[in-house]
Amino acid sequence: MSKRQIRLGAMIHGVGHGWGEWRHPDAQADASVNFAFYKRQAQLAEAAKFDFAFIADSLHIHEKSSPHYLNRFEPLTVLSGLAAVTEHIGLVATITVSYTEPFQVARQLASLDHISGGRAGWNVVTSWLSGTADNFGKAEHPPHALRYRIAREHVEVVKGLWDSWEDDAFVRDKASGTFFTPGALHTLDHQGEFFRVKGPLNIARSPQGQPLIFQAGTSEAGRDFAARNADAIFVSPESFEEARDYYRDLKRRASVAGRNPDELFILPGIRPIVGRDEREVEDRYRQAVELVSLDEAIAALGRPFNDYDFSTHDPDAPFPAQDSLEALGKESSRGFAERILRLVAEENPTLREVALRVAQPRRDFVGTPQQVADALQHWFENGAADGFIVNSLLPDGLEKFTELVVPVLQERGLLRREYSGSTLRDNFGLAIPANRNTLRRTQGEVA
Amino acid sequence: MSKRQIRLGAMIHGVGHGWGEWRHPDAQADASVNFAFYKRQAQLAEAAKFDFAFIADSLHIHEKSSPHYLNRFEPLTVLSGLAAVTEHIGLVATITVSYTEPFQVARQLASLDHISGGRAGWNVVTSWLSGTADNFGKAEHPPHALRYRIAREHVEVVKGLWDSWEDDAFVRDKASGTFFTPGALHTLDHQGEFFRVKGPLNIARSPQGQPLIFQAGTSEAGRDFAARNADAIFVSPESFEEARDYYRDLKRRASVAGRNPDELFILPGIRPIVGRDEREVEDRYRQAVELVSLDEAIAALGRPFNDYDFSTHDPDAPFPAQDSLEALGKESSRGFAERILRLVAEENPTLREVALRVAQPRRDFVGTPQQVADALQHWFENGAADGFIVNSLLPDGLEKFTELVVPVLQERGLLRREYSGSTLRDNFGLAIPANRNTLRRTQGEVA
Repeated sequence: MSKRQIRLGAMIHGVGHGWGEWRHPDAQADASVNFAFYKRQAQLAEAAKFDFAFIADSLHIHEKSSPHYLNRFEPLTVLSGLAAVTEHIGLVATITVSYTEPFQVARQLASLDHISGGRAGWNVVTSWLSGTADNFGKAEHPPHALRYRIAREHVEVVKGLWDSWEDDAFVRDKASGTFFTPGALHTLDHQGEFFRVKGPLNIARSPQGQPLIFQAGTSEAGRDFAARNADAIFVSPESFEEARDYYRDLKRRASVAGRNPDELFILPGIRPIVGRDEREVEDRYRQAVELVSLDEAIAALGRPFNDYDFSTHDPDAPFPAQDSLEALGKESSRGFAERILRLVAEENPTLREVALRVAQPRRDFVGTPQQVADALQHWFENGAADGFIVNSLLPDGLEKFTELVVPVLQERGLLRREYSGSTLRDNFGLAIPANRNTLRRTQGEVA
Repeated sequence: MSKRQIRLGAMIHGVGHGWGEWRHPDAQADASVNFAFYKRQAQLAEAAKFDFAFIADSLHIHEKSSPHYLNRFEPLTVLSGLAAVTEHIGLVATITVSYTEPFQVARQLASLDHISGGRAGWNVVTSWLSGTADNFGKAEHPPHALRYRIAREHVEVVKGLWDSWEDDAFVRDKASGTFFTPGALHTLDHQGEFFRVKGPLNIARSPQGQPLIFQAGTSEAGRDFAARNADAIFVSPESFEEARDYYRDLKRRASVAGRNPDELFILPGIRPIVGRDEREVEDRYRQAVELVSLDEAIAALGRPFNDYDFSTHDPDAPFPAQDSLEALGKESSRGFAERILRLVAEENPTLREVALRVAQPRRDFVGTPQQVADALQHWFENGAADGFIVNSLLPDGLEKFTELVVPVLQERGLLRREYSGSTLRDNFGLAIPANRNTLRRTQGEVA
């Protein structure tokens, strides 16, 4: 049996995840709507044998939103474009359950899975920002707990629709005129708390059977949802210890839910900064730090608190940890907000200190190729990660990572040198799940 | 000034629009979910300098649906894939207004327009089949008249969202840190009968400013909608005379609505069959006729009547034109149903005769390259068409048309030999409309 391998995802995000990354001298400032840029990044990640590329998303902006939220591709369309110019890399789309119809989500993801030959993944999110409701004619944004109830049902419906057609349904026998096997088409007839969906879906079961499910929950509800439903989890731990605790907790929850914990992949997000030697490392780290201004760090800090405006507070006074803020965090990005408030409770920092700590690059994965590879290997071999989402900080961050770190990991036998299959499931070593309707039918025959 | 040119669209539809086309010996029976097939068709149409490729759609199937409805790509995803492997051809997606959110439609089309460098178009449909409601948790399918009220408002919201950002909004000045010009971002604040959408859209105004609007209405409400809102109209006339009457009517309606009628393109759908000589023509016509079985023709006939099941009637008795059928047609595909009932009233045919007449290929555009070119030129020069949607009947239908008919039309100066620009608007010679918010602001300055 082959050695356990690190899974790698590339987060492709145009002008960058941070507020000021577009201001780097080498940054392509229109990257978020530049398909050539996305194509280059995806092909770079594919050449380095990454498991997947990942596109983040959100659905509400205002004039104070960060540059990368203001103007960017919609995930399913840009990933469908990338499907046509790549061959092996997985294509993971962020799609909310709070403002979409399961039929449409099931269909577009299945279509992407067919277009890409089995490389689609869905990063299930519930949407943080209450302003999103205003773009979809909803009286109010669903509160946090309700969003996870909606998520469970939405995903259940989507997965059910993906099994509308049995795998071998389309016989297409020209002589007899039989296009599909009678009995191999199934309605879903779902009637739940939030959705009523009859089905069937108007597309064949896709090459992966079920596209992979990704999730990024750190709140209690989020962890529970992920342990039951996700194939892979994104997480942004503050430290190795936090990552290890999260890893243990999620694997345990998966076992409790009756799953094989090895089939739930925990993927911390990392922001690596790599240089050939110490001097280049420090130069690149300094460049990344300088892209973060205090104003922008304070603006960014508001996001997990439903875009709360911290700029009205004195940055050098203690962090304004009033109850209203806790309430905002609870209903918005709960896990992220809880982490910030925990830090505040423990260390009593100023607003400035909190904002910069969140916005500035950390030191975890900053170093020479060997140092970064050592850190990744340490997390991977000591129960903190099954792989990583590489969220590059500098314009050439993915280039540097693939050019310098990937060969070291390959040398150590921790990363593949060639793709072993053609689907995202193949990349993760996950089998195609049996179609529930086929199971039901064959079990019926046996009984 | 250059001579008026025929506009050409290629309908790409996998296993074919008819029931039995997949049974042709040369048909690729999995074509509807085969991206390589779509890519080849789109590249073929682009090599022949077609204006656009067009993908039809629907959202409700059952076990008696026609093969091409049962299993096919979703339009926005497959067109985004095609955007990555073509350079000039327009990409027109069918999207319903009855089961979608304007924010999502505006965003995915704008994203496709960015990905493709300005080649997106939207074929606005309202959905015929009442069963669609069951897939979207709706208590009932909106009746015909309501669907067109929804359509007007939906399209108005989408167009408004496309103008959220003024054209030059993103200055991206790294030195000053100005990502966009303050004041160049606009909320929509729409509150209508069916939709409440605040905006703004989270993507820059796209290369075309506004992607093109296509429509296919033949009912009174459909014609009125198209004359006001569409850049181009699909129509399926039974004869040259019917096409000419429709053409005149729509151009008149466009004038009445205050538009330049030359900027509303009327595009009849044609099903050409071309052969090098009379013998090949007859052989190919016979092949196409043989693909239509009576059973399938009768099943297909039900579709404009909300999938009414005609198979319970005697095919050799007079067409069962009862009142209930008229009511079904009124609420489903009204224009198509009305045409069938008119034919029945005029000629008192049997069910068999009606079904075969609708399903079998007509003779209008069947012939040698010169004959087909003559017919197209006749329609084009005598007030019946501004161009055509080529809906190929046989597996190599688009190949034959582009290889044999296109050069004749080019020879006659009726078709371009090279693309003159890079967007769908360029292909149609339509200017980018001014952004409503820019207009409002500059008119404010003048006043």
